[in-house]
Amino acid sequence: MTENKICRLFGIKYPIIQGGMVWCSGWKLASAVSNCGGLGLLGAGSMHPETLKEHIHKMKGATNQPWGVNVPLLYPEMDVLMQIIVKEGVKIVFTSAGSPAKYTGFLKSKGITVVHVVSNSRFAKKCEEAGVDAIVAEGFEAGGHNGREETTTMTLIPLIRRATNLPVIAAGGIGSGAQMLAAMALGADGVQIGSLFALSEESSAHASFKELSINSGEGDTMLSLKKLAPVRLLRNPFFEKVKEAESRGAGEEELKTLLGKGRAKKGIFEGDLTEGELEIGQVAAMIRKIEPVKTIFEQLISEFNDVAAKIKKME
Amino acid sequence: MTENKICRLFGIKYPIIQGGMVWCSGWKLASAVSNCGGLGLLGAGSMHPETLKEHIHKMKGATNQPWGVNVPLLYPEMDVLMQIIVKEGVKIVFTSAGSPAKYTGFLKSKGITVVHVVSNSRFAKKCEEAGVDAIVAEGFEAGGHNGREETTTMTLIPLIRRATNLPVIAAGGIGSGAQMLAAMALGADGVQIGSLFALSEESSAHASFKELSINSGEGDTMLSLKKLAPVRLLRNPFFEKVKEAESRGAGEEELKTLLGKGRAKKGIFEGDLTEGELEIGQVAAMIRKIEPVKTIFEQLISEFNDVAAKIKKME
Repeated sequence: MTENKICRLFGIKYPIIQGGMVWCSGWKLASAVSNCGGLGLLGAGSMHPETLKEHIHKMKGATNQPWGVNVPLLYPEMDVLMQIIVKEGVKIVFTSAGSPAKYTGFLKSKGITVVHVVSNSRFAKKCEEAGVDAIVAEGFEAGGHNGREETTTMTLIPLIRRATNLPVIAAGGIGSGAQMLAAMALGADGVQIGSLFALSEESSAHASFKELSINSGEGDTMLSLKKLAPVRLLRNPFFEKVKEAESRGAGEEELKTLLGKGRAKKGIFEGDLTEGELEIGQVAAMIRKIEPVKTIFEQLISEFNDVAAKIKKME
Repeated sequence: MTENKICRLFGIKYPIIQGGMVWCSGWKLASAVSNCGGLGLLGAGSMHPETLKEHIHKMKGATNQPWGVNVPLLYPEMDVLMQIIVKEGVKIVFTSAGSPAKYTGFLKSKGITVVHVVSNSRFAKKCEEAGVDAIVAEGFEAGGHNGREETTTMTLIPLIRRATNLPVIAAGGIGSGAQMLAAMALGADGVQIGSLFALSEESSAHASFKELSINSGEGDTMLSLKKLAPVRLLRNPFFEKVKEAESRGAGEEELKTLLGKGRAKKGIFEGDLTEGELEIGQVAAMIRKIEPVKTIFEQLISEFNDVAAKIKKME
């Protein structure tokens, strides 16, 4: 993997990025991933500036390997956050949910490596223009917030590959070595894995949320709230309320009121499985155990190698 | 590929099946695919029994390679159709849109190889019980009618692979050699390709439909009519009407009236781009040319080999 573009860009052993996820990826998860040879990301989206500072400090104590911070660009106190990131000497920033033109120049001027998350080729080109170092291309099957085009990873990665020469990290539907290899066959240089790490031992998600997720099946997550911002949710009573409202044509205002504030925290972090917003990817239907990050890495690499060997024989 | 399960099952050179598609796959397309070393399928779903008989006769004259017939099990004159299939000595039948228990026993008793199309693991297991010889597992990104779980090919194939030992043919989002290899890395033994062949020179689809499809972009197909039977459609004025109705919560009855009868024929076969129902997969966004089946095969195989060689180097 030493010739891999993503490994070289970040200085990591395996081209495996742990998605920066709200209420899941604090310093415990991110440092475990970095210590295994992947790239751990702190999910700043669910952190107050002071909390982020604290996690950065703990992160520095927990690993001497490369790591980064994921920042959703609709964060309310963006300037405060960016100052902390620069002051604390964070070297890698993943931005999402906004325009790559917004902060890329500023971050690059501070010597920070910038990656932006996209769900279509048009934004991939915008990333190129903005000067980002790599992009995450995220398919329809991914958990949490998601693109309006509903393009799946299988279709999206080759389209993005044609649209840009930037290093491409595939996301959405990747929870095994076989899926990792498939993503790379499609043209990705590396993968970003969310759900599998959200359901790991080191994830700060609530045990009840993890438990419900590993017992979920096919069709148990659905892209929802498309009239607001599309988000993939796990079926629960709150999801059923949203579905009922959408089915009878509820408008933006009604959906906003129904959603209210703080539901992701309630569901993922506090384990309220009735009223919480439970964000997880389709691939949860494949995940049957809560395991330590180290075991997850061993399985990913070993399956990746097995499938690569099979393909070798196929020729 | 001589050790490939799908190649052995059908006696074909490449594990590439051409999806049996309404208004696209008559004898011209199916025989061209079979003559290139894949498996061509007549799409009986859009044929009167007499038309099917005619296509079978022409097929026999056009190829001496293996081929089959695709039968959607909600076909109105199913018994007449099945009698023709048996009487004409058809050797391979793909069934879809119904229970595999319905006709598998009958067809197998006549010595016919039976494949059934599924979109979840539960039906994959039902196929095993019914005694089918292989399954097609079709992801959310596929064109035309589609599963309610919205599971994408990237997630579905590994789930199906775990659920059954039957040979698995991946469908949905496959329009290039890279995607074919990705599907096989995920655990498929072969692939079923729809859109790419629907937009080939030999497809009986109308030139205007092909033209609109190859000029479409990301997000231009959407899974629609979910309150009836989910179907992936290309954006056009009819699609916009459906979308508007669905957005305001239109019920089953209103959608049925809006859909009416014969819209797929109108759109795909007669080229009415305003009022027609235009069925095509997400992968249409990648297809930029109408080409002969022979060229399509050459490109698929050559890209497949290129990507396999790259993976070999990756280890």
